[in-house]
Parts: sequence; C-alpha cells; structure tokens
Amino acid sequence: MSTDRQAFHGLLRDLPGPSAAATEAARARQSILTKPPGSLGRLEDVAVWLAGWQSHERPRLEQVQALVFAGNHGVCARGVSPYPASVTAQMVATFEAGGAAISRLTRAYDAALSVIALDLDRPTADFTAAPAMSEAECLDAVRRGVAAVPETADLLLLGEMGIGNTTVAAALCCALFGGAPASWVGPGTGLDDVGMVRKTETVAAGIALHRSNLDDPFEVLCRVGGREQAALVGAILAARRRSIPVVLDGFVCCAAAAVVAKLAPAGLAHCLAGHRSAEPAHGRLLEMLGLVPLLDLGMRLGEASGAAMALGILRGAVACHADMATFAQAGIDDRAAAEPAP
Amino acid sequence: MSTDRQAFHGLLRDLPGPSAAATEAARARQSILTKPPGSLGRLEDVAVWLAGWQSHERPRLEQVQALVFAGNHGVCARGVSPYPASVTAQMVATFEAGGAAISRLTRAYDAALSVIALDLDRPTADFTAAPAMSEAECLDAVRRGVAAVPETADLLLLGEMGIGNTTVAAALCCALFGGAPASWVGPGTGLDDVGMVRKTETVAAGIALHRSNLDDPFEVLCRVGGREQAALVGAILAARRRSIPVVLDGFVCCAAAAVVAKLAPAGLAHCLAGHRSAEPAHGRLLEMLGLVPLLDLGMRLGEASGAAMALGILRGAVACHADMATFAQAGIDDRAAAEPAP
Repeated sequence: MSTDRQAFHGLLRDLPGPSAAATEAARARQSILTKPPGSLGRLEDVAVWLAGWQSHERPRLEQVQALVFAGNHGVCARGVSPYPASVTAQMVATFEAGGAAISRLTRAYDAALSVIALDLDRPTADFTAAPAMSEAECLDAVRRGVAAVPETADLLLLGEMGIGNTTVAAALCCALFGGAPASWVGPGTGLDDVGMVRKTETVAAGIALHRSNLDDPFEVLCRVGGREQAALVGAILAARRRSIPVVLDGFVCCAAAAVVAKLAPAGLAHCLAGHRSAEPAHGRLLEMLGLVPLLDLGMRLGEASGAAMALGILRGAVACHADMATFAQAGIDDRAAAEPAP
Repeated sequence: MSTDRQAFHGLLRDLPGPSAAATEAARARQSILTKPPGSLGRLEDVAVWLAGWQSHERPRLEQVQALVFAGNHGVCARGVSPYPASVTAQMVATFEAGGAAISRLTRAYDAALSVIALDLDRPTADFTAAPAMSEAECLDAVRRGVAAVPETADLLLLGEMGIGNTTVAAALCCALFGGAPASWVGPGTGLDDVGMVRKTETVAAGIALHRSNLDDPFEVLCRVGGREQAALVGAILAARRRSIPVVLDGFVCCAAAAVVAKLAPAGLAHCLAGHRSAEPAHGRLLEMLGLVPLLDLGMRLGEASGAAMALGILRGAVACHADMATFAQAGIDDRAAAEPAP
C-alpha cells in the first residue's frame, strides 16, 4: 500500500464520537422547556445532535460553512445528461457571482459559501473504458476535500456540482450495495426515457468492466467515482476528526457518504441527511445508510441546496433550544404539577 | 337569520382568487432561472403560489404576521388534557414574554407575533352538556379573528393555544366529516391511554348531544367549537378578502380551517399547510382538505410553531425565486442549447 494510501486510511482510525455530557445536558434541557415533552419532534433531536458534536449544551450556528465541490466526468461523452459538460464551469462561475440557488440560500440562511472547482478542464476517464481516476488522482481530490474544511465551524453543509454525476453516483451505489443498475439510475437533471436507457447501460458497462475491483470501497471510488465525490469523502472525514457536524445534500453527496459508511462503521454519525431528493434512488440510499432525511421538498438540484434548506430548519431548532424559557422560569404548572381531573 | 349571522355569511361571498397574471409571470420566471426546470420542487410551487396571492411576479416576505388565538374550554372539566386549563393563560404570558417556542421561532424567521387571548376567564360551555358557544359568542370570536388581521401583509401565520383544544378539534372534525370519534382523537399534549378513552367518550358524547344540529358548519362551530377556532375562521376569511396568503399550523388550526372549507368551495385556496403534525388525525384531515403539508417534523405543539417553521422554508423559496440569475444573465447553455451527445 502506498504511503499516501496509508495516510488516507489513517483518516479513518479512532474517529471521535459526540460529547456524551453535552448530549445528556441538552436532552435534559429539552425536557424542562415550556412545551409538552417531545412536542417539537425532530427539532429536539437535531438540537441534541448538534449539542453533542459541538460539545455545548446550547449549540450555536454562528459559523456555518457550505462547501460545494465541482468536477467533470469522462462518462459525459456517453450522453448521460441533457446538459453539456461545459455547464459545470459555467455554474461554478454562477455560484461565485451569487446567481445560483446555493448562492441565494446561503445568503438567506447566513452560511459562508466556498466553491472548490476540481480540475474541471481535466475530466475523469470514462469509467466504461478505464478506471475513472488513478489512486493518485483520487487521493489528491480527497486531500483537497480535507483541506477545504475549516479548523473550526459550528456546522458544515456539503454539496456538489458536476454534469453527469448522477451517473457516477448510481455507479458508486451499484458497486457498494449491489442491485440492478437500473434500480440506481434516475432522470437526474431531467433525462428523457431514451437517455435513461443510455445511462443505465453506461452504469452497467462500468460495473461489468471493474467487477473484479469493487470489493474495497476506496477502489470503488477510484474506478467509478469522480473528483467531487472523492473530495466529499475527504471533507466528511476531516469534519469528523474536528467534531464538526455535517449536513449532507442529495443523491450524489450521499453516494460519496456511502463510501465513508462502507469504510468506517458509524462513520456518518456526525452527518444529518438534509433532505430526500426527488431522484428516485436517493430514498433507498438513505435507508441503506440508516439516515432519516429532515426535509422532503421534491428538490433535485444538488449544489448543497437541500442541505441549505435544512440549515433553515436547524436555525429554528437552535433558537427554541437555546432561548425558550423553562417551566420554572415561566412559572408554569408542568405536567408533574397538574392534578388529573376526576 | 340574525343580522350578525348574515354579516358572517357575507364574508363568504365573492372570495377573490389569486392574480392569474402574477401566477403566470412567476411560473415563467422559474423556467428561466439557472437550474434544471422543476429541480427546486416545492420551493418553486410555493414561490408561484405566493406570487399569485401577492400579485407580484417576485413575492416578498417583509411583513409577515403570526397570529396566535387562545381560548379556554369547558370540556377540560372532563379530564381530556394532562395540563390544567390555567396553563392557557400562563402560556399566553410566556408568548408575550418571549419564552415560548413561537416567540423564538418568529424572532428566528423574522415575523411579528400577536397573541389574542379570547376571554380566558370565561371558558366555553362543556359541549357534552350544552352548546359550547351561543351564536352571539361565536360571532364575537369570529369578529375578533377578522379584526386581528392587518389591512396588508405579505404573509399570515395562523395558530392557537388552548388546553383541551385537540378534543375540540376532534369534535369539529367528527361533526364535519363523520367517522368514528376514536378516529379523530389522539394524545394531544401527551395523554395516556386512560385519558384517551375519556377523550374519545367526551367527543362521542358531544356529537351525540348535538347530532340534530350538525348539518350547518357554522352551527357545528357554535356547538362543539371554541373561541380560538371561531377566531381562526374569521382570520382565514379576512385574509382571503384581503388576498393575504396564509400558512396554517397543525391539527387544531386545520380543524378550524375545515369549517371554512365546508362553508365555501375553494375557501382555502390562499392557505398552505405548514406541516403535518404528529397528532395522528392531522394527516387524515389534511387529505380531506386536499392540502399537502410542506414539512413533516414530528411536531405537535401548536402555537403556530409548525407554520413558523414553514416560513423558514418559504424564505429560501423566495430568495431563490427573486434573486437567482437567469440562464441568459449567467451566460449558460440551457437545455435548448445543449447538443445531445452521440
């Protein structure tokens, strides 16, 4: 195993867990706020989850960082997207100019946005003909994902952009979880039925070509993945090592997360699924990962847009958790004090 | 029919619809923004819905008003809640002091909050023994709901507070839609199994007592409703007459909305269901009303808290709709320009 590859596996060892004390303190706090126990539903759960990873009874969302990784894919040559690959770079420019959905959403919900374009002029190889990336290329992208994560942050939103990358995500899922290629393939940005057939054939051809090299999740990432997926793997692991909670975006982002889940048990404990995408395979992938999405709004854009919407929800959860009065502060009879009526 | 009752029915006549021109312009705008068509899912739908009711191609959420109506219920004497009726007034004080969930959520999502306490020291009559309200009492509460709606607003969030009022909501639904009382009864703030039996018997007794007076929805409201439900009916109708879009909260709020739906066809066209509550009957009620909830977060608090969370989502929807670049502005190849790959 190369030194670089050993360094990658080092990222996976001794992953920290959440603070048990902060988790317990946050749960106790929820039980004394002026509301029936449990009545804020998932708002309570996510506040406690944030508390655990931030090691604060009252979590904060002051420094929220969105990272959007962009890559291009040789597999685009096979007609798997209604958009040309040149759109990836155009969208990156639009993110930076403030005109994309994620630009507006990070502004609306007060998150910083960083866009990391990964060698857009050097697409990965067409995985139906060769491994998409060499080990060195893949590890380089992982490292750039690691490097993009700030030393400290209250929360990280992760997303991606890359024309053709729902094909890559379908291939990753098929390689990691098995099943028929068609069961992982969806319309992506809006492929028609003929295109869906091409896309399914493309995934099937990739899986067939690399079938004897799909036992190791890292090898799967090299063979049928892409740079933005590799960078997401690096970012998820770097966030974990720094105990920064993460909100995952849709199908493509979660396909990268699946590589982490396969490499490290409970490797996604610091990750929340921001939403369920309209891309049909995403719901199934979330089930495989044991993640329950916070939102289900029929979105299928990527760019971390679903993760950003989830931030909108987390802001309410944290506002309630941090600043509601307790029963004692409000001088209210709580359940224990209530006399049952005859 | 009394003059006051005639005035109420006047509220129901000639309800305005959304602006067709603004709806169409907003839909056209969505199709040229830098994203695949439809990829923002319900964010697109709600932006277009807001545009129609606000008569603006680009809707705004600058003046958002939350109204929380509070009432007390004679039926509480029957042990239908784990909390004593005194908690209603205590929670109203907590709303105003800023310590309740809705206080924090309206601050987090930038809405004004008005709490309207409706004769809390004068509960409605126990509907298992008498009509809950006289016609005059009911119409007075409706009028106070009408009066609480501002002349202009970009959006209204509606909610309620009232110990015992999921029993009232269950009775309203049972009277309006039929079905077994048990099918409309749930744990509310956290009733145990014994309490659930009492609650179901209470609803059944109310329906039995008033069975010959449940054909007219207004009469249903008087017989088994409460002041906060009547006020919500008034607020929903006043908002409609002023073309102000409304976000409904959970089970109790939607039970009041059901009275409107029964009185006026398409009477809820200006209303969005903010969320599906964990109260079991709410999902069924939403289906009866033809409303698809925006969120499903397991919340069951009332107070307009679910409607406020939906405002959090609407802010993202409006941010994208109003401020994203168009394909032309961003200089991006849109689908029409894309050459299909061979």
